[in-house]
Amino acid sequence: MNSDTEPLCFTENEASSSNLLEFLLLCGKLKETKRKGWVDHHIRYPESVSDHMYRMALFCFCSCPNHLNRDKLVKLALVHDLGESLVGDITPHDGISPEEKNRKEAEAFRKIRDEYLSSCTVGQELYDLWNEYENNLSEEAKFVKQVDKLEMLIQAFEYERGKNDWFDRILFLNAWQPRSTYGPFGFFHELIALHS
Amino acid sequence: MNSDTEPLCFTENEASSSNLLEFLLLCGKLKETKRKGWVDHHIRYPESVSDHMYRMALFCFCSCPNHLNRDKLVKLALVHDLGESLVGDITPHDGISPEEKNRKEAEAFRKIRDEYLSSCTVGQELYDLWNEYENNLSEEAKFVKQVDKLEMLIQAFEYERGKNDWFDRILFLNAWQPRSTYGPFGFFHELIALHS
Repeated sequence: MNSDTEPLCFTENEASSSNLLEFLLLCGKLKETKRKGWVDHHIRYPESVSDHMYRMALFCFCSCPNHLNRDKLVKLALVHDLGESLVGDITPHDGISPEEKNRKEAEAFRKIRDEYLSSCTVGQELYDLWNEYENNLSEEAKFVKQVDKLEMLIQAFEYERGKNDWFDRILFLNAWQPRSTYGPFGFFHELIALHS
Repeated sequence: MNSDTEPLCFTENEASSSNLLEFLLLCGKLKETKRKGWVDHHIRYPESVSDHMYRMALFCFCSCPNHLNRDKLVKLALVHDLGESLVGDITPHDGISPEEKNRKEAEAFRKIRDEYLSSCTVGQELYDLWNEYENNLSEEAKFVKQVDKLEMLIQAFEYERGKNDWFDRILFLNAWQPRSTYGPFGFFHELIALHS
């Protein structure tokens, strides 16, 4: 049984079947969307946005503190960058203000909700998950924001190891600065130490 | 609060922190592992194994029938090919019997449980999810097996559309044959019709 109380997303009719296909084709764009930060750092064949969200989901699955809802963490991880299927991956170096980025992403999620998934309630659910993440509305959202940065840090470590060349320390330290001291994340001190 | 009754995966000590990093580095290999079926079909820059599992997770999230547990579907989707981080993507055309493939994957999940995640219970949980999927032990597992094939079918459609060239019809029909007639999957009839 679903733990949620909402009615089920897709009902068994042709219209919703077509919508589901369109939505899944949209999700497929995340496989083709390369993470902009790596493209800017001239990484060849960098990871996709969906690669990133996949590992974040497993990261959350394996490191959820006792007081948080693990299923919620996984959902937030899977949904938080979904808007990039419509607006692409915008980084702090693209000259777009955080407010404008937020506006574009909100618009993307409204489009997903009102056009791609208009025949079911799951669109609203996706919107609410993004909103919760984006606006730090829960402890789970705050945790996943940390995981977002930490997963990037591991990926930077992997690319650097492969190239035997270090990225800009600033990138690392910016990602690290606001991180939690939650125990299982202690290994990031080791990664940072490698940059010292 | 976690819905599971197991004790939490990672405790707050240095040993488990190192294990978590090693496990996440292992998961990173799924970003580099290209889906073998596409490599064999000479697709340039094909999707990764984690790309595939990511869209499967969203697919499950949006098409879960009322009588199934949606969180379980998402977890099965995220975990079912995780063993490929150790054994690679084995396809039916690799000359490896299904029994041997199963044996290799079981060994991979035991290694994840007993070495990478030995300090916590999440390793056993991952093993159990894989076992449930692999051996069709629940209605959720059977559903995710369909989604596995259907996601592949959509990806084939996308690659074919991009190339304006069709793959081997056999690939398509084999993937389609055992599929359910569950309503939201009706759009696959359209994809199949394109091959007729």
